[in-house]
Amino acid sequence: MKELEIINTIKNILNSEFIGDDCAYLKDLGIVVTQDSLVEDIHFSRKFSTPFQLGYKSIAVNLSDIYASGAEAKYLTVSLSLPKNIENNFVEEFYKGAKSALNSAKIVGGDITGADKIYISVTAIGSAKDRKISSRKNAQKGYKIITNGLHGSSSAGLYILQNNIEGYETLKNEHLMPYVSSKLSDSIAKTAKFNYAMMDSSDGLMDALFKIADNSNVKAKIYFNKIPYDKSIENFDYKNMIFYGGEDYKLVCAISPDDLNNIDNNLYYEIGEIIEKTDDNIVEIQCEKEIKTFTKKDIEKNLFKHF
Amino acid sequence: MKELEIINTIKNILNSEFIGDDCAYLKDLGIVVTQDSLVEDIHFSRKFSTPFQLGYKSIAVNLSDIYASGAEAKYLTVSLSLPKNIENNFVEEFYKGAKSALNSAKIVGGDITGADKIYISVTAIGSAKDRKISSRKNAQKGYKIITNGLHGSSSAGLYILQNNIEGYETLKNEHLMPYVSSKLSDSIAKTAKFNYAMMDSSDGLMDALFKIADNSNVKAKIYFNKIPYDKSIENFDYKNMIFYGGEDYKLVCAISPDDLNNIDNNLYYEIGEIIEKTDDNIVEIQCEKEIKTFTKKDIEKNLFKHF
Repeated sequence: MKELEIINTIKNILNSEFIGDDCAYLKDLGIVVTQDSLVEDIHFSRKFSTPFQLGYKSIAVNLSDIYASGAEAKYLTVSLSLPKNIENNFVEEFYKGAKSALNSAKIVGGDITGADKIYISVTAIGSAKDRKISSRKNAQKGYKIITNGLHGSSSAGLYILQNNIEGYETLKNEHLMPYVSSKLSDSIAKTAKFNYAMMDSSDGLMDALFKIADNSNVKAKIYFNKIPYDKSIENFDYKNMIFYGGEDYKLVCAISPDDLNNIDNNLYYEIGEIIEKTDDNIVEIQCEKEIKTFTKKDIEKNLFKHF
Repeated sequence: MKELEIINTIKNILNSEFIGDDCAYLKDLGIVVTQDSLVEDIHFSRKFSTPFQLGYKSIAVNLSDIYASGAEAKYLTVSLSLPKNIENNFVEEFYKGAKSALNSAKIVGGDITGADKIYISVTAIGSAKDRKISSRKNAQKGYKIITNGLHGSSSAGLYILQNNIEGYETLKNEHLMPYVSSKLSDSIAKTAKFNYAMMDSSDGLMDALFKIADNSNVKAKIYFNKIPYDKSIENFDYKNMIFYGGEDYKLVCAISPDDLNNIDNNLYYEIGEIIEKTDDNIVEIQCEKEIKTFTKKDIEKNLFKHF
């Protein structure tokens, strides 16, 4: 089964309005919640990641989901499953790395069990108090599209690690310990007067743009020359890394121009805008003089056009 | 590393007052949270459990932790990792089983990833609104010790499954789909005037008694002939199954006699009382005329005395 089929199966059984978003907003409790898992040899390899880096990344990717919702990250639980042959200091190093990613959030529980491979599942809880919470459905014609960091570094870093290429420490580090920041999220959630649509780029910049456009029934126009990226990735297949690489964990947000006026412009890069209401051709990328349009069918069939 | 060592390592790094309890009580948010994982061939086997039963149990064991805290179970997230060779209807059957265990709680998120074996990690969130929340530290001299179900059935059921013994459907079912109930928890949490100490028997009746006594610095006296159990387990090593078997997921609570007066006595069995303040000999079991005392050192060394 493909991911979309699986999600539909689950939705049909549970009849839940929550399934499908990264963070669930539980209004009655005033919180958001997200759970993300990292599985050895699927999401990471012990060849590349130290236990410290794994601890850091397990926390950071979940905080990133909380930031994408606009909530204040508060608490996390960590479930760790470890094989018998794990190095003696794994738990200590893992939690030191986890702690280094926490910012002001706290780890408050979880469990440790045995397993054949390393399996890490983290749940993060954020507070919605005094904040406007994001929804992918909120983008409107005229909204600006902004992001808060460089795209493509993580997948370039993974490529470099997998191909044993020397140098490029910054890119490798962005893959192993992606930098996540709450600053843009805090600023928007505390000041926005209109609804906004924010996601993180965990599955790639294109995925974030698609999901916002698809859920809001709008068309997003992106100017390639405005997308921030590390110039050193131009040595690789950089355009595809930028759009489809994933794991950069940067925020992508469609926000009203009025609200954007109140955000410190050091916190974001403006990369495009929402240009019209539509149900089909939902993402348009202008790259020099060429314009590529991506339809809803492209997403559903996983037909990603390469650059 | 043993479990206690691991927990101490984590505590030292995180400097958190929360680590060590099954549910963390997040007072500022008015919620409790717990996360528990089930790993194939460690916690269950596909030989014995159907996908439906696995879905049910994954939810039930986490609801049980919420009930043990006294909170109202509200929301869950489910992280599922599945091998490629999984049967086609696994996700559907798993979620049907999960749904059957939900009562009024809702599944609001999670993820599905690949893995070598089935790995299930569930987080449950409960509301503390208008309820007094339990802590293991709350037991006092004079408190009554009560439980809300039969002990030993689950481990007897597992033994029967593993040894391919015919019959005993009730016991097998209690292992595969343990019955959990919020009734006693709801009643205590909504009416208690004094603090109380409640746990579930996920790791066995003795473990629950030990942890309450140890954290409260009291001695618990239990009358073996008052412990409810299914008489059919007398065909096996039943006393050890009752005390050390685990996975029954029944509530064990030390509660003031005054508060107990307000609880419908159809909801519990009284099995003992807290008899004194002490730092060492903390659980005493009276079994016919024989009295066995269990010290704190017995726990720390994992020296469980067999009956």
